[in-house]
Amino acid sequence: MRCFCRVEYDGTAYAGWQIQDNDKSIQSELESAFTIVVRRPCKVVGAGRTDAGVHGRGQGMHIDLPGDIDLRKCKSSVNAVLPDDIAVFDFQKVDDSFHARFSAIERCYKYYIVSRKMPLWQGRALPVAFQIDWKLVNENIPFLLGRHDFGAFCSSGSSAGSKVCDIRHAGLEEENGIHTFTIKADRFIYKMVRSIVGTLIDIGRGRITEPLDKIIDSRDRTLVGDTVSACGLVLEYVAYSGVK
Amino acid sequence: MRCFCRVEYDGTAYAGWQIQDNDKSIQSELESAFTIVVRRPCKVVGAGRTDAGVHGRGQGMHIDLPGDIDLRKCKSSVNAVLPDDIAVFDFQKVDDSFHARFSAIERCYKYYIVSRKMPLWQGRALPVAFQIDWKLVNENIPFLLGRHDFGAFCSSGSSAGSKVCDIRHAGLEEENGIHTFTIKADRFIYKMVRSIVGTLIDIGRGRITEPLDKIIDSRDRTLVGDTVSACGLVLEYVAYSGVK
Repeated sequence: MRCFCRVEYDGTAYAGWQIQDNDKSIQSELESAFTIVVRRPCKVVGAGRTDAGVHGRGQGMHIDLPGDIDLRKCKSSVNAVLPDDIAVFDFQKVDDSFHARFSAIERCYKYYIVSRKMPLWQGRALPVAFQIDWKLVNENIPFLLGRHDFGAFCSSGSSAGSKVCDIRHAGLEEENGIHTFTIKADRFIYKMVRSIVGTLIDIGRGRITEPLDKIIDSRDRTLVGDTVSACGLVLEYVAYSGVK
Repeated sequence: MRCFCRVEYDGTAYAGWQIQDNDKSIQSELESAFTIVVRRPCKVVGAGRTDAGVHGRGQGMHIDLPGDIDLRKCKSSVNAVLPDDIAVFDFQKVDDSFHARFSAIERCYKYYIVSRKMPLWQGRALPVAFQIDWKLVNENIPFLLGRHDFGAFCSSGSSAGSKVCDIRHAGLEEENGIHTFTIKADRFIYKMVRSIVGTLIDIGRGRITEPLDKIIDSRDRTLVGDTVSACGLVLEYVAYSGVK
């Protein structure tokens, strides 16, 4: 029985989603927990990898479980076995043709920026000490929308073929001194969101004077800003058709 | 020169606001940091104590500093010396008659409740596994409003004289599975907010059948619910007239 569920995690203590040889990963913690609960070796398939330190609020995954399993009890048991910084929810039976990665139709990330030391956002947001022209940042954000080759924002470690992503939404909100950048697309390439946020910040502080559309068109990695810290990034959700 | 400022802290690692003989406190960390920066012994006066594990987003405090000090630089230096889980902000010079505790006109607390294991809210919210009738909880909240003797909600460890508090606002909001209870009053007595939240939860799950107005009127500690965990409680702000 193929089962879909969502995963929420605080990525601080992990080397990322994907199983690593010598390091803790979200995927390995999940496989261990399911293996203990189901009493047979379990493999989990995620919608995509998140990097070391990146958080997840609604990561998608699937797993093949014995057909007679009670999903409600399984969820409780897996959560009890998992460490405090990982949880599973929204368990549901899906077709065998469902695949957490290939059936996904949209991903949404949020990046949080705070303008002063904020202990209650520690490890959840990037503290930025310098002045940022947020109006200028907001003027550049619409250039992200639509289908573009995001090669300029792709980390050199990437093995991705196509660098074309279709950005369906990009926006910035501010509340109580916390800026939240939200971006939704069919797919993202390696370190793309953190590279986009770093470029927007550098535009806002005047270190980059080229407008964002020109930078995207250039496909030139040397024109973009620093890749900002993983701690401010959350994989908010992965959307599927036919699965809530 | 009397200086007012606000303090944000993650209370998880502390025995509370007030200086303790053998334990870490927010107040002692602040006094150490100011003493290092100003190079003379410093005392800080808070708007009120918060208990062990309770967080602060806008706690108020005052301190007497040398008249020639640059408040902007002082703020940066104190934040650099303080641990990551404590920060100071909103520095301003105030009259010598100003007192962080006695000049306060209103306090606001928030209590966060999550209905499933949520790693990104770990240490910031109370996880509640059982079903709660939130409609019933909402029907009881207005009974809190106005001036009442809150003796029933006062922990036995309290040395407070009057137990009369004037509740100006009490409300519950829900967003993405996170319930936030907000309460504003001229003053609060020892463990009062956590005792009120515990009682509301017990009403919502059917363990307490007496309506909240009857419990308040009774002044009987045996009628109220458990004092809920400190981790979900945040001192949101302390308000003053003439100080922003």
